[in-house]
Amino acid sequence: MIFPEIDVLISEVGMRDGLQAVSRTMATAHKKQWLAAMVAAGVREIEVTSFVPPKLLPQMADASEITQYARSFDGLSIVGLAPNLKGAQAALAAGVHKITIPCSASEAHSRANVRKTREQMVDEVRNIVALRNEMAPQVKIEAGISVAFGCTLQGVVPEDDVIALLESVIAAGADESGLADTTGMANPAQVRRLFKRAVAAVGMQHVGAAHMHNTRGLGLANCLAAYDVGIREFDSSMAGLGGCPHAPGASGNVVTEDLVMMWEAMGVRTGINIEKLIAAREPLKVGLPGEPLYGMTAEAGLPLGFVYAAAQ
Amino acid sequence: MIFPEIDVLISEVGMRDGLQAVSRTMATAHKKQWLAAMVAAGVREIEVTSFVPPKLLPQMADASEITQYARSFDGLSIVGLAPNLKGAQAALAAGVHKITIPCSASEAHSRANVRKTREQMVDEVRNIVALRNEMAPQVKIEAGISVAFGCTLQGVVPEDDVIALLESVIAAGADESGLADTTGMANPAQVRRLFKRAVAAVGMQHVGAAHMHNTRGLGLANCLAAYDVGIREFDSSMAGLGGCPHAPGASGNVVTEDLVMMWEAMGVRTGINIEKLIAAREPLKVGLPGEPLYGMTAEAGLPLGFVYAAAQ
Repeated sequence: MIFPEIDVLISEVGMRDGLQAVSRTMATAHKKQWLAAMVAAGVREIEVTSFVPPKLLPQMADASEITQYARSFDGLSIVGLAPNLKGAQAALAAGVHKITIPCSASEAHSRANVRKTREQMVDEVRNIVALRNEMAPQVKIEAGISVAFGCTLQGVVPEDDVIALLESVIAAGADESGLADTTGMANPAQVRRLFKRAVAAVGMQHVGAAHMHNTRGLGLANCLAAYDVGIREFDSSMAGLGGCPHAPGASGNVVTEDLVMMWEAMGVRTGINIEKLIAAREPLKVGLPGEPLYGMTAEAGLPLGFVYAAAQ
Repeated sequence: MIFPEIDVLISEVGMRDGLQAVSRTMATAHKKQWLAAMVAAGVREIEVTSFVPPKLLPQMADASEITQYARSFDGLSIVGLAPNLKGAQAALAAGVHKITIPCSASEAHSRANVRKTREQMVDEVRNIVALRNEMAPQVKIEAGISVAFGCTLQGVVPEDDVIALLESVIAAGADESGLADTTGMANPAQVRRLFKRAVAAVGMQHVGAAHMHNTRGLGLANCLAAYDVGIREFDSSMAGLGGCPHAPGASGNVVTEDLVMMWEAMGVRTGINIEKLIAAREPLKVGLPGEPLYGMTAEAGLPLGFVYAAAQ
């Protein structure tokens, strides 16, 4: 953990996973206001954009400008998604601190999402690592295993396939690899089992974030399950914004506000102020008027007598 | 567990906890259709009503008729809430299998909810047990500890108060006592701690259901936490209907459909068919047109390749 004052790292993915799932494009100025509000709430890591061709994802056409803006906040860890070497070049040029590469555990999703086989994506990871070593050795490379808990195209994804891919991307030089429930099909027993296997396979230092969706309401329970087996990094999205355009039926990420509520109430420090986090929904509302925003904590507010983890 | 074919008992409380929180009254005929649909889905225990004066809760004026109707379903465990001796007399006369008595862990909520002190409620439990012993010794008495995890009137509820009340109601003759997060203030660490203390205090055979609300989105995570320390009975409400009229700010129960989804996916048998359970939302919609229905699983449906616990 690069932030010694916290117990779990919340990696906010709404600006990437969320905004790519919304057909409208949020204006760059609104993105900046939203980002600044989240940083003000204490969010320490933000996946700010995706480095993909604007004709594929016009919502991310301002990737470099947003990354540059994010660099104005001291201490913020800036993540950019890159599906290929060209995207990674742009991400490194823009100045991200971490590149995340989506590697699908199912062949069907891999072809639909990145038009490559799983093996070709491992090669891509290797190439991106080589580029990073040359251009910016301090930048971290994460290869996230998508549809690790089930696929809306293929159905069940064998756990052996997930672990084999995880081992391959780490062998290819990725610093860490998280497990993503892209499609909201995970359950807590499976989460515990698969993360335990991941840790046994590549060591805790190479296991990245738990990226859970809330498609069937199990998102927080799955995060708790991952925490129980030692995971300390969690991807989540403000207001539950998100989904995957190439995984039909996949919907909303775990809601950051509710996830932070759970950790702080449990005595697990996130470094995030919940009231300021809820206030950061305002620029999101302004930037995407009419978009449905999820989350129960924002409706209910803090419980009477609530004490943050750091004060418990 | 009275049902050897299942691993956890879902006690559906929507007809009581849900309908009392809705200002409109569902017609008796619609209640019957809803109940029948839930039984058809495999729901084995239903809290069908509350035995309170109709002028206080007109939604429950058909308490006896609904209980009589529920008795037409073989093997269904029928629960009725009774806040006092008079209610218990009516519940026993109507033919419930279990009476549940709400006992608040906070003095403020006790006075607001039942207009009695906590001590007076323990006396009430003792009197109801004596009546049960005389009239219908086979009927179970549950004394649920309300606001066990926090109170919207008082704020923090000391854990010692909860355990002391739990010990008192069991000493007064209640067969079991569950812990209720009436106000949606619980977190998983607290749930594990308090249920462990409850089991240590009165023995697992006297610890009843975990009754969790989803006010801040933590409902399923809290159920998982209770399961982790050995709890096998869970109250929940179809479509998350519910709340407490005397606990301002308390909202929705854990959604039965999502809770069943979690257990079945984990390999924990509930005996409930999720598709039929989702179908049972229809009579609820018809009976309460326009009422917001919650739940993610009903929106998303079963995942591709889903296998029920009994077939895993």
